[in-house]
Amino acid sequence: METIELHGNVYSGNCPTRQVLDRIGDKWTALVIGVLEEEPKRFSELQRSIGGISQKMLTQTLRSLERDGLVSRTVYAEVPPRVEYALTPLGETLCAPIAAIRLWAEANIAEVAEAQAVYDAQM
Amino acid sequence: METIELHGNVYSGNCPTRQVLDRIGDKWTALVIGVLEEEPKRFSELQRSIGGISQKMLTQTLRSLERDGLVSRTVYAEVPPRVEYALTPLGETLCAPIAAIRLWAEANIAEVAEAQAVYDAQM
Repeated sequence: METIELHGNVYSGNCPTRQVLDRIGDKWTALVIGVLEEEPKRFSELQRSIGGISQKMLTQTLRSLERDGLVSRTVYAEVPPRVEYALTPLGETLCAPIAAIRLWAEANIAEVAEAQAVYDAQM
Repeated sequence: METIELHGNVYSGNCPTRQVLDRIGDKWTALVIGVLEEEPKRFSELQRSIGGISQKMLTQTLRSLERDGLVSRTVYAEVPPRVEYALTPLGETLCAPIAAIRLWAEANIAEVAEAQAVYDAQM
């Protein structure tokens, strides 16, 4: 393993942290992690909780989160089989930082919208 | 102004907070805000600080941040004119949440890379 991987630096263009930063900052990631923070969920429950997410986008987001070790996928041997998604311990460490971003967006939307209106009027 | 704009809810597909969440989670936004957190910078200084960012992407990111009211652009009447980018007071409120995301990526890259290797080996 190279030094660059042990001491991540997002400001270095070649550092693998850059891709991680990109994925954890993704809005669908932020929304899925926020829902799973409450409790494990089935696919259909997740889809209902996140307005406007397509089946394809949710599938991709969950697969990416699973690959990164942030979400686990458990199949229960019932009839019909039940599949549940849950945060891993690593995924749980992301809850607080991501919630802060989500809450910032909700708290400051009016101020951002006002700034946009002023900017657009000057163009 | 509709109620939905006053009480932002990122889980509602039609809520304007969704777009804000998307932009503030963007990796280039996170990197630009992190550099401006130190002090105001010129375009060329920003570009040098952020490995791998193209001139076009930096221009777009700065314009979007300016439009959202997070970054100010000041032209100093010197010869040649000097243009500086700085965080606005609103932009400064984003520093802590974004730094938490950036630091998470840097701190957990080894664990994420390990999870990816395990996942890929199972495919």
